[in-house]
Amino acid sequence: MGRIKSLKCRECSTEYEPTLKYVCDECFGPLDVIYDYDAINLTKDKLNIRSRNLWRYFELLPILNPLNIIDLTVGFTPLIKCEKLGKILGLNQLYIKNDTLNPTYSFKDRPASVGVSKALELGISSVGCASTGNLAAATSACAAKGGLKCYVFIPSGIERAKIVQASAYGAYVIEVDGDYDDVNRLASQAADLFNLGIVNINLRPYYVEGSKTLAFEIAEQLNWNLPDHIIIPIGSGALLHSMCKGFEELERIGLINEFYTKITGAQPEGCSPVVKAFKNGNEEIIPIEHPDTIAKSLAIGEPGDGLYALRKIKKQNGYAESARDLDILEAIQLLAKTEGIFAEPAGGITIAVLKRLVEQGKISKDEKVVCCVTGSGLKSLEIISTPILKTIKPDIELLAKVIGV
Amino acid sequence: MGRIKSLKCRECSTEYEPTLKYVCDECFGPLDVIYDYDAINLTKDKLNIRSRNLWRYFELLPILNPLNIIDLTVGFTPLIKCEKLGKILGLNQLYIKNDTLNPTYSFKDRPASVGVSKALELGISSVGCASTGNLAAATSACAAKGGLKCYVFIPSGIERAKIVQASAYGAYVIEVDGDYDDVNRLASQAADLFNLGIVNINLRPYYVEGSKTLAFEIAEQLNWNLPDHIIIPIGSGALLHSMCKGFEELERIGLINEFYTKITGAQPEGCSPVVKAFKNGNEEIIPIEHPDTIAKSLAIGEPGDGLYALRKIKKQNGYAESARDLDILEAIQLLAKTEGIFAEPAGGITIAVLKRLVEQGKISKDEKVVCCVTGSGLKSLEIISTPILKTIKPDIELLAKVIGV
Repeated sequence: MGRIKSLKCRECSTEYEPTLKYVCDECFGPLDVIYDYDAINLTKDKLNIRSRNLWRYFELLPILNPLNIIDLTVGFTPLIKCEKLGKILGLNQLYIKNDTLNPTYSFKDRPASVGVSKALELGISSVGCASTGNLAAATSACAAKGGLKCYVFIPSGIERAKIVQASAYGAYVIEVDGDYDDVNRLASQAADLFNLGIVNINLRPYYVEGSKTLAFEIAEQLNWNLPDHIIIPIGSGALLHSMCKGFEELERIGLINEFYTKITGAQPEGCSPVVKAFKNGNEEIIPIEHPDTIAKSLAIGEPGDGLYALRKIKKQNGYAESARDLDILEAIQLLAKTEGIFAEPAGGITIAVLKRLVEQGKISKDEKVVCCVTGSGLKSLEIISTPILKTIKPDIELLAKVIGV
Repeated sequence: MGRIKSLKCRECSTEYEPTLKYVCDECFGPLDVIYDYDAINLTKDKLNIRSRNLWRYFELLPILNPLNIIDLTVGFTPLIKCEKLGKILGLNQLYIKNDTLNPTYSFKDRPASVGVSKALELGISSVGCASTGNLAAATSACAAKGGLKCYVFIPSGIERAKIVQASAYGAYVIEVDGDYDDVNRLASQAADLFNLGIVNINLRPYYVEGSKTLAFEIAEQLNWNLPDHIIIPIGSGALLHSMCKGFEELERIGLINEFYTKITGAQPEGCSPVVKAFKNGNEEIIPIEHPDTIAKSLAIGEPGDGLYALRKIKKQNGYAESARDLDILEAIQLLAKTEGIFAEPAGGITIAVLKRLVEQGKISKDEKVVCCVTGSGLKSLEIISTPILKTIKPDIELLAKVIGV
């Protein structure tokens, strides 16, 4: 099969041809894309002259023919040195990976791009997703650009902004009266019965490959010197797991020397099954029945890759830590007021968890830390309380009183 | 004064020291920043190794000391070849400059960055703006990053998203009971009386310099071969005027051979004073008393730079054309559904006007056309009508009926 070697079961290591397959026949484990790493020749010099989007890492992405790439100019988002925020938190080397600056304003553009492009390559004409919101917009936009039909399945109660946005790109939005797990089951049935390419279900092995480009970019933007610590939000756990796979692959092909970075996962207190398992020393994830958090993107009670995320966290000597909704809100404001970056709760949570880890003495002041900010605050405006300082008549004396001069 | 030569009156050519000054003492004309162009040595090779944001054009920006730069990673947004949209409109070389991918999701990050950085350089500790929304967020975010206090003045009736966003960055938002022109007058008084740096009033000569980086980037991203035609929205007219200044400067310093590009201005029918002047062959702009359009960012009845924009349009053999709200809405959807780019009305208008010009035979199929899409649709979601296709129980048979399979 050339560069893309197989789909390999994460549990029992059985290997399959890289087709439309996502569960191991032997043990029902998830499948990962494996490349012929020895044959991959991706060098710093090659990268230097390529376009600044995620497709620059083509050799490590699961698309065979470049003509199948749907290029929405995703990725290569800024990695920002945060002097002001760092000072407040007591850190000398704090960076934010600002993934709010993707085409649909969240990191989900990464996996969606790869998943939808793979659908095109596999000859599938209708795609879709089960989504808590951000993925809906990402899949829809990419399907629009690629000329594929798109069905997005969402649970009730999602932020309106995310629904309107997905629908603007021409997707059929189907609101399922239930929670994310109900949505997931229905979309899964639909994938099988109606021949849909649901990016995060039957295209999942390909889809998750997109997320690891966040790891590639962090490494490249730090001139191939990894940070000491990265904090990543956990919803399904796939982002954290994929980013680790990405770093491992960079080590495998020699672009970095060693993947020594501590990897920490962040969950909201109202939905923190991975954090609970980590703190209790469990080897399994106990599902949360009724997630309750403002971080709707992370309200996944039964995280599909939760266990695998937990294992990576342990392997990389990181932590799993939670933050209360109130702390997330505070973190969002702190980030916006110091660095001019406006995050949604699922993005702001990494700052809240960072603050907590620093207070606990688990991160020291000279460590080089990267927080992933994965989605834009514009999509969850309803969490911000009434903002107007004052409404006044156009009169300078009234104004003087209002602003206290 | 070195690289920055003077502030020069656009009307009577009187020159002033480049300080906090924005109106000519002689004739009340606006002032433009003039550089010592012969001394500027900005080459393609130099640019190749610089950071991909607007500060790469430092030599042509009005900041003296690089330490005063507040770098919010603004600019170098994607210039996207639009095959699908082009095909529908009958154009072989259509590009979108996607300025929705700036840190606060509109092109206003460009002038705000330069204006706020200049305030810092001039020792001003409180900044602000009179804004229809996008500038509010841009100024607030930049002030936050730079550690300056920020007051934003907005008219009543602005999209809530824009207000919440500005306030998230820590700005004091002052809603003025009146239209944009009332806001402008009040902010102007406040600038003088309270020593505020209002970026689009007393810092205006510096502020508008930021907008011309859109021109620099279009030229550079097309490998210094200018397009045949560029379509630019007109609110105050400053963006169009500044972009022309940018292209003229590139010609002046030898980075392009000749600025031959047709420049067209786009206004909503409910507020199109420049278009009316253009079509009637007037040499003056007659203000609109009550702007009425969904494109709130362009609802400026008395555009400060309207006349200057009109002159540039004529000089560059372009057009001024308007679009109805309904056509703007259609254009937004067309852009989202073909290219996966979600624009606000003030951004979508350039597509609506492009369509009109093609229909009128004013743009032919092989011309290389760039449409500037200046702000994100996430900020004006209220214009999109109810999006849900259907809410259903999690049942596959119900789903089959709903999606018609």
